[in-house]
Amino acid sequence: MYGRLLLPELQVMLNENDTEGVKEFCDALYPAVTAEILEELNSQDVWRVLACSTPEKQAEIFQFLALPQQIEIVGVIDREPLSKLIEEMAPDDRVDLLSRMDDDHVEELLPLIAQAERRDIRKLLSYPEDSAGAIMTTEYASLPENISVSQALERLRLQAPDSEIISYIYVVDEGRRLQGIVSLRELIFARPTRPLSELINRDVISVRVDDDQEFVAQQMAKYDFVAIPVVDRQNQLVGIVTHDDAIDIMQEEATEDTYRLAAVEPLEDSYLSTSVKTVIQKRIGWLIFLLVPSFLAAKVLEHYEAISDKYEWLVLFIPLILASGGNAGSQSATLIIRAMALESNIQQGDLRALLRKELQLGLLLGSGLALISFFISWAFTAQLIQASVVGLAVFLVVLMGISAGGMLPMGFRRLGMDPALMSNPFITALVDILGLIIYFQVAMYLVS
Amino acid sequence: MYGRLLLPELQVMLNENDTEGVKEFCDALYPAVTAEILEELNSQDVWRVLACSTPEKQAEIFQFLALPQQIEIVGVIDREPLSKLIEEMAPDDRVDLLSRMDDDHVEELLPLIAQAERRDIRKLLSYPEDSAGAIMTTEYASLPENISVSQALERLRLQAPDSEIISYIYVVDEGRRLQGIVSLRELIFARPTRPLSELINRDVISVRVDDDQEFVAQQMAKYDFVAIPVVDRQNQLVGIVTHDDAIDIMQEEATEDTYRLAAVEPLEDSYLSTSVKTVIQKRIGWLIFLLVPSFLAAKVLEHYEAISDKYEWLVLFIPLILASGGNAGSQSATLIIRAMALESNIQQGDLRALLRKELQLGLLLGSGLALISFFISWAFTAQLIQASVVGLAVFLVVLMGISAGGMLPMGFRRLGMDPALMSNPFITALVDILGLIIYFQVAMYLVS
Repeated sequence: MYGRLLLPELQVMLNENDTEGVKEFCDALYPAVTAEILEELNSQDVWRVLACSTPEKQAEIFQFLALPQQIEIVGVIDREPLSKLIEEMAPDDRVDLLSRMDDDHVEELLPLIAQAERRDIRKLLSYPEDSAGAIMTTEYASLPENISVSQALERLRLQAPDSEIISYIYVVDEGRRLQGIVSLRELIFARPTRPLSELINRDVISVRVDDDQEFVAQQMAKYDFVAIPVVDRQNQLVGIVTHDDAIDIMQEEATEDTYRLAAVEPLEDSYLSTSVKTVIQKRIGWLIFLLVPSFLAAKVLEHYEAISDKYEWLVLFIPLILASGGNAGSQSATLIIRAMALESNIQQGDLRALLRKELQLGLLLGSGLALISFFISWAFTAQLIQASVVGLAVFLVVLMGISAGGMLPMGFRRLGMDPALMSNPFITALVDILGLIIYFQVAMYLVS
Repeated sequence: MYGRLLLPELQVMLNENDTEGVKEFCDALYPAVTAEILEELNSQDVWRVLACSTPEKQAEIFQFLALPQQIEIVGVIDREPLSKLIEEMAPDDRVDLLSRMDDDHVEELLPLIAQAERRDIRKLLSYPEDSAGAIMTTEYASLPENISVSQALERLRLQAPDSEIISYIYVVDEGRRLQGIVSLRELIFARPTRPLSELINRDVISVRVDDDQEFVAQQMAKYDFVAIPVVDRQNQLVGIVTHDDAIDIMQEEATEDTYRLAAVEPLEDSYLSTSVKTVIQKRIGWLIFLLVPSFLAAKVLEHYEAISDKYEWLVLFIPLILASGGNAGSQSATLIIRAMALESNIQQGDLRALLRKELQLGLLLGSGLALISFFISWAFTAQLIQASVVGLAVFLVVLMGISAGGMLPMGFRRLGMDPALMSNPFITALVDILGLIIYFQVAMYLVS
């Protein structure tokens, strides 16, 4: 917020071509704050600002910009300075950017990038999206086993500037296989001549390059880790995932689930920076799909036309019956989907317990709502029989809605699909059809 | 997962009263893994296991248990060992536990806890729930300004075992006012005789004790911090919030928003460990409240009884009209609520841009769905006029639903309330009432 107040000052310096002033401006602020200010400028001006600083500083600031803006900006930078900027970016952020750029553009740039970095980029680009490999960074501190504490500190001095996190140092053997971790804290306070091997904690928790990013974040949250090592099939250390990535993943996954619950396909960027065209693509499919059950509901209503013609008051309570069942069902689905997302180690037994709970809840909530609906509709129509039909139908439809809301996400998980795929609108639609059938059957049973 | 495989082994040792074996078992595993195994035992057995270890180890493991289980377990521990265990817990976890225990029980325990810790507990307990003060820990490393690098390292050696994070050390003046931070990395690699003051980064970002926890987590996510210092009104350093807490807060806030979107009041514990009684309390209020618009919808239907009697086919498409508008409205509300939750610095101007976007989307999605509905209902009824009524009504109701879904969360935020309070079922209910009015007005206009 306080960053935006500085925008006018920056614009004055830009107008006056005061490159020295712009450089000092960027050096004085946190990169995240500078990035916040740059969000307000067009791509040309962003690059005019960044160009005043060293490539290191450029990369630091650039990494805090949103991906869509990053992509726009790389379009206005010449190949030479762009390759320098990309060379300085953190490996994980760099891969995020390159994987969203044109393949041709990337191929054009790669020859200009130093060979070691180039190999690194090709490797990270080859991991599947949403895998540990795609989100990890290769800038971590590692040490061989057979050295002393003072030698270890000496080596770290050389590695450290490049390492994202050095609270923990990873110890590897000659084949780069992960042997254990040493905490920097212990290393500093240990006797300098002590062998490093005495400080190693060999019971180390790691993830595999092909593990899903959601699993990686869950492991980090579970163990409260600042970083987690990533190994390949041969247990060779290939990178680390850091705490800030874990937060980003959690956010991303929570957002995806929330979207799915409202029948919106996940967006790649923030809603603000997504185009109308893309938003329509993410929304229209489900909306059209959801027309189908509505027409089936029309068929159901047609089927019961005889009784609804005879007892016209039945029509009045259709919204009530459908909303009660749909709302209660959506509540259940949401609670269960969120429980499954949060507890990585939820067991089949837990799910059965959850289902029993839903049934209990269905009976209790159903009775409560039925009773209230009974009395209100009695007051509304002054007819005991009508109120009885409404009350009984509400009870059964709520019970059915809660059962459907509870069981469908579990069924989907069982089939190996995303439980959140069973969006609440779909559950509501299902409840519409079954709810109407229940309602008219109750009516036929009680009034005729 | 692999933890649970070890449960039988632990039970055998418990049955044989092999305290030495149990102690070794706990020492060999990560505290988080031991805690996962203990989840399967009853409170008595959990304490029998923990009692074999030192209070430090007990606290480490205990902190990884879920709060409801922690509360059950403290009920079976004698005052003496319980006060030792509580003394060893991290200040933030300890306060979470104490704030959920009976006041009498806490008052009984406090005299047994060392005085320094006791003062700490009383202070942390006094901060409002969900504030930075309530989630921070008081175990951080701090240093005075006017010492050398080697003196700094010497002091850290004494403080470090108690400090949660020492990647950053906080520098304070004589009045404990925060002056800046020093990174441990720089400290280690600096010349020992250098004055500490030369290494201090004075441009430090901190939060206030009374800041909301959501704001704290957003700041940490924005700057990619491992920890953030917490200061009081006098800028005195009182604690730090660490990265693992930030992840927990993000999860908690995402869960709350998701629940609210489905009209469920936030739960304090995980859904699995919440009692049926509590779940009913969190669900029934909104469900009853949502009956009101349904009865209003009944009133609307009663009002239009003359036309729906004359043109009976109108009733068939009620579910279609209502579902289209409700689904499109819920999509908009969810997208906007999530955007507001993720972007802490969303501006009034951004909101206006979002609203313009929603209106565009409403026109486009409304036309698309109207066209499809027109053709399907034409095929369904073989009547051009009926299909026209349905198509036009779908267009208007979708446009209305999207406007309502977009504007209501913003209005709520403007009033200083939680935007997610405007749950999707409520938007759907509102669309039900207005949707029916639109539908019948369109019908009256076109058919009569």
